[in-house]
Amino acid sequence: MGGQQPDDPAARREPGAHRVLRAARPEGSRVQVGGVEVGGPGFVVMAGPCAVEGTEQLELTARAVAHAGAHLLRGGVFKPRTSPYAFQGMGEPGLKLLVDAGRRHGLPIISEVMETEQLPLMAEHTDILQVGARNMQNFGLLRALGRLRKPVLLKRGLSATVQEWLNAAEYILAGGNEQVILCERGIRTFETAMRNTLDLAAVAWAKEKSHLPVIVDPSHATGLPSLITPMSLAAAAAGADGLLIEVHAKPEQALCDGQQAMSPEDFASLMRRLPGVLAAVDRHLWTPEGPAQIAGAR
Amino acid sequence: MGGQQPDDPAARREPGAHRVLRAARPEGSRVQVGGVEVGGPGFVVMAGPCAVEGTEQLELTARAVAHAGAHLLRGGVFKPRTSPYAFQGMGEPGLKLLVDAGRRHGLPIISEVMETEQLPLMAEHTDILQVGARNMQNFGLLRALGRLRKPVLLKRGLSATVQEWLNAAEYILAGGNEQVILCERGIRTFETAMRNTLDLAAVAWAKEKSHLPVIVDPSHATGLPSLITPMSLAAAAAGADGLLIEVHAKPEQALCDGQQAMSPEDFASLMRRLPGVLAAVDRHLWTPEGPAQIAGAR
Amino acid sequence: MGGQQPDDPAARREPGAHRVLRAARPEGSRVQVGGVEVGGPGFVVMAGPCAVEGTEQLELTARAVAHAGAHLLRGGVFKPRTSPYAFQGMGEPGLKLLVDAGRRHGLPIISEVMETEQLPLMAEHTDILQVGARNMQNFGLLRALGRLRKPVLLKRGLSATVQEWLNAAEYILAGGNEQVILCERGIRTFETAMRNTLDLAAVAWAKEKSHLPVIVDPSHATGLPSLITPMSLAAAAAGADGLLIEVHAKPEQALCDGQQAMSPEDFASLMRRLPGVLAAVDRHLWTPEGPAQIAGAR
Amino acid sequence: MGGQQPDDPAARREPGAHRVLRAARPEGSRVQVGGVEVGGPGFVVMAGPCAVEGTEQLELTARAVAHAGAHLLRGGVFKPRTSPYAFQGMGEPGLKLLVDAGRRHGLPIISEVMETEQLPLMAEHTDILQVGARNMQNFGLLRALGRLRKPVLLKRGLSATVQEWLNAAEYILAGGNEQVILCERGIRTFETAMRNTLDLAAVAWAKEKSHLPVIVDPSHATGLPSLITPMSLAAAAAGADGLLIEVHAKPEQALCDGQQAMSPEDFASLMRRLPGVLAAVDRHLWTPEGPAQIAGAR
Repeated sequence: MGGQQPDDPAARREPGAHRVLRAARPEGSRVQVGGVEVGGPGFVVMAGPCAVEGTEQLELTARAVAHAGAHLLRGGVFKPRTSPYAFQGMGEPGLKLLVDAGRRHGLPIISEVMETEQLPLMAEHTDILQVGARNMQNFGLLRALGRLRKPVLLKRGLSATVQEWLNAAEYILAGGNEQVILCERGIRTFETAMRNTLDLAAVAWAKEKSHLPVIVDPSHATGLPSLITPMSLAAAAAGADGLLIEVHAKPEQALCDGQQAMSPEDFASLMRRLPGVLAAVDRHLWTPEGPAQIAGAR
Repeated sequence: MGGQQPDDPAARREPGAHRVLRAARPEGSRVQVGGVEVGGPGFVVMAGPCAVEGTEQLELTARAVAHAGAHLLRGGVFKPRTSPYAFQGMGEPGLKLLVDAGRRHGLPIISEVMETEQLPLMAEHTDILQVGARNMQNFGLLRALGRLRKPVLLKRGLSATVQEWLNAAEYILAGGNEQVILCERGIRTFETAMRNTLDLAAVAWAKEKSHLPVIVDPSHATGLPSLITPMSLAAAAAGADGLLIEVHAKPEQALCDGQQAMSPEDFASLMRRLPGVLAAVDRHLWTPEGPAQIAGAR
Repeated sequence: MGGQQPDDPAARREPGAHRVLRAARPEGSRVQVGGVEVGGPGFVVMAGPCAVEGTEQLELTARAVAHAGAHLLRGGVFKPRTSPYAFQGMGEPGLKLLVDAGRRHGLPIISEVMETEQLPLMAEHTDILQVGARNMQNFGLLRALGRLRKPVLLKRGLSATVQEWLNAAEYILAGGNEQVILCERGIRTFETAMRNTLDLAAVAWAKEKSHLPVIVDPSHATGLPSLITPMSLAAAAAGADGLLIEVHAKPEQALCDGQQAMSPEDFASLMRRLPGVLAAVDRHLWTPEGPAQIAGAR
Repeated sequence: MGGQQPDDPAARREPGAHRVLRAARPEGSRVQVGGVEVGGPGFVVMAGPCAVEGTEQLELTARAVAHAGAHLLRGGVFKPRTSPYAFQGMGEPGLKLLVDAGRRHGLPIISEVMETEQLPLMAEHTDILQVGARNMQNFGLLRALGRLRKPVLLKRGLSATVQEWLNAAEYILAGGNEQVILCERGIRTFETAMRNTLDLAAVAWAKEKSHLPVIVDPSHATGLPSLITPMSLAAAAAGADGLLIEVHAKPEQALCDGQQAMSPEDFASLMRRLPGVLAAVDRHLWTPEGPAQIAGAR
């Protein structure tokens, strides 16, 4: 727990974020996640429930999203909740369920890590470590993630400027871990009709300024299922590299954020609509074989 | 200047906005503007300089946007400026230039009206009366516009909720003028990297709640020319009915907001990219002949 | 309706706001209002109902605030309402009631003007013309107010920066009317527990940067009667020159914003608590005779 | 790392925050800190540098604030910085300097804890553990603090609603640690003239809803030294229980936030002005002997 000597000249020189800048890697970064590539021409969709709640719920949802063409399975086992009395996630037993479901359906998994102490467990069993909006400036956690060599999905903070978002990513890259994916999930504004305000211009801005892949979470951003499809298509058109979407087999029974989960049917419909928009911006849904395959399939 | 009697029962009954709701016209409204239809399957692009500055600037810009396929010519002659000492617009002489340029290039024109006193002049010579963000709750102006039978483009206020935006439109419809087009132009948030925060979810929300056409102004929303193309494509994918874009033949010489104007070349490039995204959401750039023509052109 | 020639060099020179700056009048401005001085050492309290609703309501409220020591009577007769179907104010008949009530109780009156067309009537009969938050950048109205020689109270816009607030005042001063009082009334933020977020630092900032008097409206700022007393005392401690408070003899029957009106009893209690805080910052409640009188009364 | 069983009925029942509510302790909480009481009639001032930078800087500042009448010494040794390359604090050696300075001047100390791993060290040596705005919803840290029996100062998050702020405190109380002090430090809004927007209405709101003491940090809230005095007086008038102020013996040489630090002279002047405002709201600067002593001293 030694600190920095303030008379160390380094303490006064303050280079800005630079490892995250596009100039550092003009061609853009591609993050490999269990056989899936994020940040290349293929557009990657991560879907699943807000929280892992039990075997049946997870199996139904995982099967549905896999069948619809999702590339990764998401599911929270440690849940950051505003109230200490709200469902806090299933923890390690939930993680085991998630791992099993991912394996059964051939999907890499992504799950949120809230504390440094959870890192060994989560890093061993998940394919992407998700940092939630409330932890975007949990600098101890960012530094710990920088010491890993494991993909990290860094959500933008509720009221983080885009510059602060890049700076937070810089903490991870500065530690030597370059596998960072940015995720826009809506910012907090005066508007109350939607849960947050989805800032798609921030996606285009981040793609211009940084080489890191940028994906969009339209579920938390809007909180309204009927807006998820138009916002997903808009994200694709804006140049995002993928989506993170909440899907629940039985949204009305969800323990967490059920009101914003897509039904499996609506998710499947979205997956059928994405290729057209992606093609218009010279992208395609990711496949192991690349775009030609997709083009043939249309 | 008589008022309302507070003991009039009507003063206590307060119906919410209802004329603007989709339930009032489930099939959606279409606004006819000098031969162009806004709100139907055709996507409408309005482009031109922030402010009319002179004959040559306007002619160069009008010619460029017409050539690229814009459907209306925009140009401010009365400019709301934060400082009383900033260029306030050319006024009536500017309007004449705008009318002439529109006629030369076969484009209907849209221009901002700031005060009730400007209405007779502006209503006679323009095809759409634009209400700026700062006037969204200028209720006297809204009421006066309600008494006209003329298309109105109502920009969302800088910090107006989507519900307040609909309520403002209701003021116009309540007066009997149903030719209202909504325009999302970004809201004011903590983020400073962009001029405003473009709220595309508000577009999808407004399309769901209301029958009114909704267009997007990516120029004021972002203030950054490099973001206008991705945000225009995203707006199209999100279900917007059109765009309002600032184009300037010589952005570096503009008297007003030049830093956010697109060059004619970038605008032409955007116009070539829009049809692909529109087709993916079953829309097309507006043409007098409708979609078949466009489909053939692709 | 002539405009500005853009090739006029003045159109390119853009001096910032300067007439409003403290440097222009280091000793500070004092605005005389029907025998009351705003901006000097005396602290001025304007109180009354949100809207004039009828003879009895107004008389009860006016008598109560006069008795408690208020210096001006407020009351809206033209009301800016979000919905076109909400009570829009009594108009001219309401103004007559307000004038009569002010005269009966020896209080100058302040009332909101929403449109240029209302100016002749309102300027003739009121002592201060109030510009509401939604009209802070109604530049036509500001220019018309600049041509008068009459006190204007300029409320800060819902999402106006403090610099834009000063710029709006500059519009009025640039026209030759120097009798401007600024009013902070809360800004729009993400917080929903209060109606707005009262920005008292903006008061201290404005007092430092500008010579204009600055008062505070804690009623609209908080929307919660229980917060009005602490925020009024805080405003006095922060250096404000006065208060604008909604008081209603029967808040539960108010046609407009009753939920945020103070009761006459709470208002009287606040008036008894203000002198102590004011004395601590070398101020006093305004009296015709000045501070000595007050000091003796304590 | 076991989690919660979602079929546990407790996972579905979600009581709101209740331990923090005033109803739970109507008389209000008083937190004892090294001989000083926070939350009683005595108003408590915590002052010192943003960061501990070295022996001389700290000694000069500590001596000045002690001499002026501060009750606690503040100083960061672990600093949350937006950039990974900015001065991150002196760590444990800095803590030792802070402890020594506090002891020399008879002042209990308060310092920020950023991570659970720092807790044993910080809990042993500091008198109050400060949780910064960026960690207000670092739930792991909050839970760890709940297991201690040690005063915690919980800053409001940059964009936390007042309800979320109380919920965050509930996390600590739910763990059994009731010694929580809330601290308002400004929220993030569109305004850029000040560093943040100080929300004093939130102080009055929190005092009404909760029994916890509430103090104000005007340094981070405004970022402008000239506003610290008026905002400190306003906080006292609004009912705050104390202040947390950045003072630096040589602000222009500070390694961290020097631009917002008060000079020792200005701080001493503020300390002389506080008693008057406090007396007006029936409070006094805290002293071991209570108010009578103070009254005699004025």
